[in-house]
Amino acid sequence: MRIILIGGTGTIGSAVYQLLAEKHEVVCGTRSGEDLQVDMASPDSIRAMYERAGPFDALICAAGQARFAPLGELEEEDFEFTMTNKLMGQVNLLRLGSELINDGGSFTLTSGILAQKPMPGSAAVSLVNAGLEGFIRAAALELPRMIRANVVSPPWVRETLIKMGKDPEPGMPAGQVAQAYRQSVEGNDSGQVISP
Amino acid sequence: MRIILIGGTGTIGSAVYQLLAEKHEVVCGTRSGEDLQVDMASPDSIRAMYERAGPFDALICAAGQARFAPLGELEEEDFEFTMTNKLMGQVNLLRLGSELINDGGSFTLTSGILAQKPMPGSAAVSLVNAGLEGFIRAAALELPRMIRANVVSPPWVRETLIKMGKDPEPGMPAGQVAQAYRQSVEGNDSGQVISP
Repeated sequence: MRIILIGGTGTIGSAVYQLLAEKHEVVCGTRSGEDLQVDMASPDSIRAMYERAGPFDALICAAGQARFAPLGELEEEDFEFTMTNKLMGQVNLLRLGSELINDGGSFTLTSGILAQKPMPGSAAVSLVNAGLEGFIRAAALELPRMIRANVVSPPWVRETLIKMGKDPEPGMPAGQVAQAYRQSVEGNDSGQVISP
Repeated sequence: MRIILIGGTGTIGSAVYQLLAEKHEVVCGTRSGEDLQVDMASPDSIRAMYERAGPFDALICAAGQARFAPLGELEEEDFEFTMTNKLMGQVNLLRLGSELINDGGSFTLTSGILAQKPMPGSAAVSLVNAGLEGFIRAAALELPRMIRANVVSPPWVRETLIKMGKDPEPGMPAGQVAQAYRQSVEGNDSGQVISP
């Protein structure tokens, strides 16, 4: 398969890249531009990326900026930023790519455990993650040409906890999280929230 | 209790009004202005409404516009409209009201069954309903002064199905749906998605 992977340089994304590049052609899209440059906050940038990418069988997004802060400090602008980037960025990758992807292709987006298990500071992130799950359940019903769509909801990732200076013990290794993306791309699921 | 009810003239809202006005003082906020005028899409309008409303013990929102259309016809603007109105409108009612509500007060927002059980055409609505549920789970963790917050997820409502010219049989009467709002206001739940 030819796979476009957005965010292939991040903690989860690079594990997904390693796992899938063994068997597939993986083209990476990032803000700074590895193979493909894309600003997820801009529908025009997404359209331009798809134009440059050419035919593809799967789109994986393991990127999307979001603001984490105490509820009383989250401003209107923080919600807007998070919705424009992680939420509508991923919604638009699917919407704008659904006419271009090959028959039987798949979209795999990323939500996160805070959708269902919040913590103080996660109001905007929980909103966006849960919203992505609602969107994917609905959108998958309407995709034509046997196209599938799922969202992976990663738990806390071991490598991320280490980078944050926290106890890595409760975290899942990124390589294990990556298996959920492979399941979405190579399996038959559609409209599912896949928890690694 | 003194309760602000947004959308008290709608199908669900008027049933909530009837049920709660038996025991409480219910002040209605609508776009056209029953007791209080409010445009949920505007944070400034919400601020002005709270200023005019004075002290209150509960805020219920049974309003929020959303766009229902086939996935291929939902434009960027339809998602934005739905997020600005039903999603951020309700998020802002909570955010901007949380400093003003009396100690031990409660916020009750409205999502809907399409969050979890989508249908063709519901991509934007499902996104917003699920997003509200994620938001309420998170926000409830951080509310001070024993303030509570829940979201009611109504099923299809009998009276709405009749208005739409559809079979009312699978619908729940609005009066029964209203009980879930009473449970949220008079009970002890917080951070819950309440399904009538």
